[in-house]
Amino acid sequence: MKAWQFMGTGNPLQYNEVEEPHAGPGEVVVDVKASGVCHSDVTTLDDPGWMSLFQQGLPRTMGHESAGVISEVGEGMGHWKVGDRVGLAPLTPDGSALGYGKWDGGFAPKLRATDANLVPLPDEVPFDLGAMATDAGLTAYHAIMVVGGAKEGMKVGVIGLGGLGYIGARCAALIGSEVYGAEINPDTRELADEIGLAGVADSIDAFQDKELDLIVDYAGFGTTTSAAIETLAEFGTLVQVGMGRLEATISTYPIIINQLSIRGSKSGTKEDLAGIYELMRTGKLNPPMNRITHADIPGAIDKLREGGVIGRFIAMYE
Amino acid sequence: MKAWQFMGTGNPLQYNEVEEPHAGPGEVVVDVKASGVCHSDVTTLDDPGWMSLFQQGLPRTMGHESAGVISEVGEGMGHWKVGDRVGLAPLTPDGSALGYGKWDGGFAPKLRATDANLVPLPDEVPFDLGAMATDAGLTAYHAIMVVGGAKEGMKVGVIGLGGLGYIGARCAALIGSEVYGAEINPDTRELADEIGLAGVADSIDAFQDKELDLIVDYAGFGTTTSAAIETLAEFGTLVQVGMGRLEATISTYPIIINQLSIRGSKSGTKEDLAGIYELMRTGKLNPPMNRITHADIPGAIDKLREGGVIGRFIAMYE
Repeated sequence: MKAWQFMGTGNPLQYNEVEEPHAGPGEVVVDVKASGVCHSDVTTLDDPGWMSLFQQGLPRTMGHESAGVISEVGEGMGHWKVGDRVGLAPLTPDGSALGYGKWDGGFAPKLRATDANLVPLPDEVPFDLGAMATDAGLTAYHAIMVVGGAKEGMKVGVIGLGGLGYIGARCAALIGSEVYGAEINPDTRELADEIGLAGVADSIDAFQDKELDLIVDYAGFGTTTSAAIETLAEFGTLVQVGMGRLEATISTYPIIINQLSIRGSKSGTKEDLAGIYELMRTGKLNPPMNRITHADIPGAIDKLREGGVIGRFIAMYE
Repeated sequence: MKAWQFMGTGNPLQYNEVEEPHAGPGEVVVDVKASGVCHSDVTTLDDPGWMSLFQQGLPRTMGHESAGVISEVGEGMGHWKVGDRVGLAPLTPDGSALGYGKWDGGFAPKLRATDANLVPLPDEVPFDLGAMATDAGLTAYHAIMVVGGAKEGMKVGVIGLGGLGYIGARCAALIGSEVYGAEINPDTRELADEIGLAGVADSIDAFQDKELDLIVDYAGFGTTTSAAIETLAEFGTLVQVGMGRLEATISTYPIIINQLSIRGSKSGTKEDLAGIYELMRTGKLNPPMNRITHADIPGAIDKLREGGVIGRFIAMYE
């Protein structure tokens, strides 16, 4: 089979002929049906700092956002069967991730996976959505639902309505939170109605009168952190996810006087992936997507590098 | 009786003859045995911003850190009796505090108090310690024990070993945490052995190799917040208490990647006061104190205004 492989920093993805994988003990083989292209794929290709994640050697098949169908079941994996629809949480047993370390990813027709990855994909959730949920979805859901504890009736602010922010805001709206959004891009701001926002503005501090209990900052531009701190109600929580700019100048006064919490959140768990699939099976969580073919993966990476893309690129296999 | 009273911003404390209080329904009268002088007394006298806390009128007897003996019991307060030793948590039923709003404080031989304030003072705890515990003690204890969740065996950092920091660090050491301190004042740093610290340095980031689970910043100079964020272990918590400087420039990267929490803490509850009395009855929590007389209160406020004081000023009554 052919796979898009990482050859080292500064090199383009290479379309190599590779051996088909087989399921060892504790493993299954998944026929990949959809695989998302992530901005971290760009960083992996461009930033030498990421080479430390490839100490098991190169080339490595990329792609850490996949969903598909089990086609082979290894020893000790009898709780899965051929034909099971699955989404693949990216984290692997060795603390690495699919597409990194020693685990090949989903930019190929087949991959090996373990119980660390496998989550049943409900019949109602198409493969493209199932793939998107595994990284962008998981991370967005974990931040707002688990770390932030969004609940029905809670007043919630979401900063950034692009990729992660759209999903996070929509999850909170679907469970009945009153959600206010902040987004500087006017095109993205037009998604407010589709998400079901109670209000949208350039900056979250436009909602200082709303007594927000929770704000999730999916943008992370420093000024967004600062504005969130100035906006939260007493005992409110800011969840920091986005890394747009890694420095923030904040006032500690509202943190102390209003007894706020600021919590960092990254990635998520298999349980979060199951949680987001539950919301997706209602058919009401449909973030913007750009469906592409397997051949388009390098082009999609180039477009992400240029910036300004709305909607996740999802490569579909027949 | 004579009381030291606040007359308005910019005026010195005035020693006025006032009527002795009597216990109304739901109230007791406490004969004050010890009353602490707090840096917020300086701010109350000097900063016009605090005038908003005196909308019930002036003059008002100051002093919000008191302990004493019940001398009169009002209707519905039969669960207390004359002769009971008590510490007075500062918060009053109307959300104000003793020495503010409509409630006179402890810079007088007697004051009125309610169940919102009253905590039994164990026989083993002298009145001076009992008074100190009500504000400095309560605030320090709440931050490190309740918000921070310090536990036996936990690795804890404490920034600032003056007033609050001494108490917080000592509380954590007494329950068996491994406590590391940061303090820029060399004189205060000499308290390390007395507190029972495992290590002490100028800045908390000297302990980056210790994998601290909790850091409490009792100083709050911005740089201290930033250093704490760079020092905490994964899933660590920074509790922000001190307001030395109200702006901090921080890196959000370790917050996200290490999934840190930053939590603001102010004041505390009656339950915290009871908790700190339990530690004090062991005889092992003896923060530095400067015992003064009732007549010395204005002089103590002047010294606090000048700065550099080590140890709480506690005015003692015979």
